[in-house]
Amino acid sequence: MARTQGSHSGITGPRIQDAALRLFAQHGFAAVSMRQIASAVGVQAGALYNYTPDKQSLLFRLMETHMTELLTAWRDQSVAGDALSQLEGFTRFHIRFNFENPDAVFIAYMELRNLSEENFTVIESLRREYENTLETILRLGVSERVFSVPDTKITTLAIIAMLNGVNTWYRSGGRLSLDQVETSYWEMVRRAVTT
Amino acid sequence: MARTQGSHSGITGPRIQDAALRLFAQHGFAAVSMRQIASAVGVQAGALYNYTPDKQSLLFRLMETHMTELLTAWRDQSVAGDALSQLEGFTRFHIRFNFENPDAVFIAYMELRNLSEENFTVIESLRREYENTLETILRLGVSERVFSVPDTKITTLAIIAMLNGVNTWYRSGGRLSLDQVETSYWEMVRRAVTT
Repeated sequence: MARTQGSHSGITGPRIQDAALRLFAQHGFAAVSMRQIASAVGVQAGALYNYTPDKQSLLFRLMETHMTELLTAWRDQSVAGDALSQLEGFTRFHIRFNFENPDAVFIAYMELRNLSEENFTVIESLRREYENTLETILRLGVSERVFSVPDTKITTLAIIAMLNGVNTWYRSGGRLSLDQVETSYWEMVRRAVTT
Repeated sequence: MARTQGSHSGITGPRIQDAALRLFAQHGFAAVSMRQIASAVGVQAGALYNYTPDKQSLLFRLMETHMTELLTAWRDQSVAGDALSQLEGFTRFHIRFNFENPDAVFIAYMELRNLSEENFTVIESLRREYENTLETILRLGVSERVFSVPDTKITTLAIIAMLNGVNTWYRSGGRLSLDQVETSYWEMVRRAVTT
């Protein structure tokens, strides 16, 4: 395949990440070779190793990028205010972010088993950082006496799992807009935590 | 490897299913070869083909077995009574069944992408059958005026996703018993659907 214009520029990095993300999501990390990724990008396999030392590092970088973008996006969009409005903001944000990043979300959960121990620790701690932002909102609501949540950790994990489920069934262009879906889930979350 | 005693008996089928389940869950369907499965069982690769025509059929059989066992177990354990007690029964049943079958549950969601179109249709219809049992409970609760659920389909999917999340974090021997986890989730489910 002809050497593409981007192969010496900063463009190749994102293109490698995009191709790897798509292939890992489609076939699973273990079934995809560096050669396949290179071919999808349109570069020689050797060119890939200028970007990443191995497939493990590539997976780690994808997951780290995803978690960092998630944390940054939440910080940028999170609203001040009481616990109830913060929780509504979180619910809507999480559904929308997942909807916009289906492959990265899928991989972030499915390929944990393929991370090295050291890489797993880093990703887990980023995930915990994100979970903590939700748990902080729940604790605030408890202190405001608006939420009744006996175990804020369990409720955090339950809410995130529930919201993650949207990606398994929601398709745009169906009977519901994403905004309607957000509203339905927010109603369930609100009821599940309020007194 | 020596031919094992079970290789000509009915024992080999379940052993093949067990080995395939474990290997698919660990490495992903696409990354596991029939040879690896045969080796894990302790039979020649050829012996595997007496049991299953190919890896696709093996995956399909695993997922079909899982869904059928799930449906049968629910029918055996489901309780009569009002919607609230049925929903509590469902919540506790689902968490326990998933806890006892982590690999099958993981594969049932993760490897849908690797099913042939025809096989996917069968598995999806079994999954819908299971979801319908929950949706029927929600509709009953609405008709009893005990539940307020604007969209029973969305709430069905939200509840199942929330309960499925337990397998991603719960380990026995931790600070919580499974019964305590069931009780926490039931509390959230109950509040999310009741008026």
